[in-house]
Amino acid sequence: MTSDEPSTSPVRQLDEEECWEYLRNHEFGRMAFHLADQVHIAPINYAVDDDVLLFRTAEGSKLLGVVMNPDVAFEIDEYSDDEAISVILRGTARILEEDEEHRTENVPLRPWVNTLKYNVVEIRPTEINGRHFDLTRPWLHLRPE
Amino acid sequence: MTSDEPSTSPVRQLDEEECWEYLRNHEFGRMAFHLADQVHIAPINYAVDDDVLLFRTAEGSKLLGVVMNPDVAFEIDEYSDDEAISVILRGTARILEEDEEHRTENVPLRPWVNTLKYNVVEIRPTEINGRHFDLTRPWLHLRPE
Repeated sequence: MTSDEPSTSPVRQLDEEECWEYLRNHEFGRMAFHLADQVHIAPINYAVDDDVLLFRTAEGSKLLGVVMNPDVAFEIDEYSDDEAISVILRGTARILEEDEEHRTENVPLRPWVNTLKYNVVEIRPTEINGRHFDLTRPWLHLRPE
Repeated sequence: MTSDEPSTSPVRQLDEEECWEYLRNHEFGRMAFHLADQVHIAPINYAVDDDVLLFRTAEGSKLLGVVMNPDVAFEIDEYSDDEAISVILRGTARILEEDEEHRTENVPLRPWVNTLKYNVVEIRPTEINGRHFDLTRPWLHLRPE
């Protein structure tokens, strides 16, 4: 919460346990990563394994990016007419070794899209931040049904 | 579409006009940006003004980040049980000068959260990429209603 928000703030910080609960109850988010000197973003489906996130990926820019620079950010969110939640984490990504890949068997890491994805990547959070927003969108009620 | 996907690919590329249509019909996405040597991600609500995106922000890491390094990425998505769409762009961000801020008056750039946000930022895409996914999630039908 920044200091220039009104005193009755529409923004509430989630505590760390609320953030993890929210992460465990979802499976779709977006990862931001470096690719050389560029920033990239990609949707991923993931699962929580204890205190890390796991996801699968094919050879491609996501994999190359995190091999070159493990610094990543990750976000999940959802919103309704009146409220929104966003959980953001920063951390480091690492490709699992073959003898670690059995970890995916214990979590609901299910591929949403039927393409070949051989690599499993772990994101270990170093910071986690969740916020709940009260939304003010009076124009929604002005729209035709 | 990468070469290691099956020949009857569940992934379809959107053309550029489809991507812009999708961007114009939405107003909530996530921006990935540099902050010094870190990558960050933040949800934003935006509007399309001709060939750029506009959003408002308070003083904070988003603003500092794009002042220090204008290289950004942006993503919007949505999914149902059977399909998903994701539009991703990369581009450069720039804070509008005061005499340009009138541009927000011509677009539906409506603050979702009632906090103070004095700055208007423009994202000018240099690459845009949209994909439609056929989802294969049989486990959805195994869940209790």
